[in-house]
Amino acid sequence: MFTYHIPTKVYFGKGQLENLGNVAKSYGKRILLVYGGGSIKKTGVYNSVCTCLKNSGMEIFECSGIEPNPKVESVRKGIEICKQNKIDVVLAVGGGSVMDASKFISIGACVDFDVWDFIAKKLPVEKSIPLLCVLTISATGSEMDNTAVLSNSLTQDKLALMNDKLFPAASFCDPTLTYSVGKYQTACGSADILSHLFEVYFNFNQDLYMLDTQMEGMMKTVLKYAPIALKEPENYEARANLMWTSSWAINGYIYGCSKNPWSCHAMEHQLSGVYDITHGLGLAILTPHWMEYVLDERTLPKFYDFAVNVCGIPTDKDKMKVAKEGIEYVKNFFFNQLELKNSLSAIGIDDKNFEMMAEKACGANGFINGWKKLYPKDVFNIYQASL
Amino acid sequence: MFTYHIPTKVYFGKGQLENLGNVAKSYGKRILLVYGGGSIKKTGVYNSVCTCLKNSGMEIFECSGIEPNPKVESVRKGIEICKQNKIDVVLAVGGGSVMDASKFISIGACVDFDVWDFIAKKLPVEKSIPLLCVLTISATGSEMDNTAVLSNSLTQDKLALMNDKLFPAASFCDPTLTYSVGKYQTACGSADILSHLFEVYFNFNQDLYMLDTQMEGMMKTVLKYAPIALKEPENYEARANLMWTSSWAINGYIYGCSKNPWSCHAMEHQLSGVYDITHGLGLAILTPHWMEYVLDERTLPKFYDFAVNVCGIPTDKDKMKVAKEGIEYVKNFFFNQLELKNSLSAIGIDDKNFEMMAEKACGANGFINGWKKLYPKDVFNIYQASL
Repeated sequence: MFTYHIPTKVYFGKGQLENLGNVAKSYGKRILLVYGGGSIKKTGVYNSVCTCLKNSGMEIFECSGIEPNPKVESVRKGIEICKQNKIDVVLAVGGGSVMDASKFISIGACVDFDVWDFIAKKLPVEKSIPLLCVLTISATGSEMDNTAVLSNSLTQDKLALMNDKLFPAASFCDPTLTYSVGKYQTACGSADILSHLFEVYFNFNQDLYMLDTQMEGMMKTVLKYAPIALKEPENYEARANLMWTSSWAINGYIYGCSKNPWSCHAMEHQLSGVYDITHGLGLAILTPHWMEYVLDERTLPKFYDFAVNVCGIPTDKDKMKVAKEGIEYVKNFFFNQLELKNSLSAIGIDDKNFEMMAEKACGANGFINGWKKLYPKDVFNIYQASL
Repeated sequence: MFTYHIPTKVYFGKGQLENLGNVAKSYGKRILLVYGGGSIKKTGVYNSVCTCLKNSGMEIFECSGIEPNPKVESVRKGIEICKQNKIDVVLAVGGGSVMDASKFISIGACVDFDVWDFIAKKLPVEKSIPLLCVLTISATGSEMDNTAVLSNSLTQDKLALMNDKLFPAASFCDPTLTYSVGKYQTACGSADILSHLFEVYFNFNQDLYMLDTQMEGMMKTVLKYAPIALKEPENYEARANLMWTSSWAINGYIYGCSKNPWSCHAMEHQLSGVYDITHGLGLAILTPHWMEYVLDERTLPKFYDFAVNVCGIPTDKDKMKVAKEGIEYVKNFFFNQLELKNSLSAIGIDDKNFEMMAEKACGANGFINGWKKLYPKDVFNIYQASL
């Protein structure tokens, strides 16, 4: 039993920015443009967006400098601008960090209390300023989901909020805008997409085979096109397939069969919360070790399906061997094909915070209630194996 | 370049009717209950629905007797009831025919002109009464799309209208409500679902491989579960997979890669328009002959993919042979596994209207602009081959 609801309208394909002005105008005149470190100025997206908006008579306000793993301080700045200027519509131009920060800005601007209290005190989300997104990197799926993640450097927390008021009203997904995304970010984004699929696919709920086929198809798409996008950054077909898959891997479509909390994301959020590493890189390093840690007789059938249907491992051997070859396939994909670093020590992380992070990853319940239940000692072991 | 937008909220799974009352109430007090020949009274769905609505304080009006291939006369009756009783919300309880009739009722009740003029004169759709659907048969996908089909016995037309105002506001999809659907209707519904996938899958636009994987997964789901549902009508897993696939096969998700008009549907609408046969049966009879007619060197690669990825045909032979075995697989599925009649003559249709129907199927353009362009003589040949 589940509810499906994704009201976001998506304008997908080359040239879709031409519709931005008209869509923005339908929400009002005063728009807050949210973006990151200024790469959109180098790529020309900033100019294109501003031209569209000005041609439609919009008055543009700006909130720039949103950092990767966006911080509550940046969000508070954006909220202040909204309140002072009676902003009608918020426009995120960027990737997951910019979109997530914009989601918090669009709800924070409608309340009198501090935005962190939506998370810390679980205060109710009742209103939001309409949010538009122009996607410039395929990864988090924020352009089509109801989730946003925020970091608080004071408390060393990186926490997620899920609420239907966080759905963007419309998103503009033009694969050509991701041509300028570098190898490393493309690789990390692809690892993130795959992880979103893994987190849902690897579970015991067998009711909806149909959704398994959908996830397998999306995984095959990432495995096929991420290496192409790395080699040929302006390959439209590769960028388009990664972009559309990134949205569908996390927008709620595939959740029908699983309500389990996510394991690797819970463990990774501690890593990028403490060390500010790229989320997708952390996921790539942890995932194969998590797979090896949870592989047993009970989880074997799903690992076997994955190895055969997604990785194309031949079935002429023992099922456990097939499953293990599937995990090796994933390792090879992340660390050879995508050329990502393959251990925590290789990115300068040592074991001194593992215990604290393992405790925090398990949250108030004391365990991650995932496919296989993980207690702090399990999480610690997985961190240790990833070292 | 495409736009994706499906605002319908779906309550999926056993027991979801319990939410119907609250959802209905949020739109107002006066509800029009639209249904067909009364089978919902035998199955108990009628009572369950009325109880939910009354418990939420709704005032129920009724429009019953919607026939398969719904006729404009029935829709006019429903519109009259809406206008006389200031209906706030329309509730369709049934399958594609009831939902499609309800869609026309919900837009027809908001205008002064005759509802057929939305089709005949292409008058604009600007308003609709909110529509809710309780799905009792998996087939047309109307519960989650913006399309409705209406027949006019006076003009022997069966025509479709696509408009965003035709999206249901919410749909209740409880697989247990399809337990009572008989073998024949289950088979026809499954043929309809498959055909929706074929119409989009078989095309030349190769940009979005990801959507091909999604369609292949949905086809595999129908091939796997339709025979199970025929044998075990109360198998939840089978009914749930067919139900969720039926919605996604036609709600717009898979259209991203193809804007081609549909071939088999255009040809079949003439058949069920003139002879009032079940839509899915007409599709099952025509489809393999359409496949054989359009198979050539240009279309071979997609037929080959289909045969291998969906039907599991071994690749140890000539590609054309693999493709042909895929088509044989479809025939065997429709006519042996689903036990559907395999020719037009077997259901009492002769060739006397073929010429007229072939002309009409090609419409004002003079051809069906599908995967392979079909002129009246082609359509005539396919009808003839299906005889």
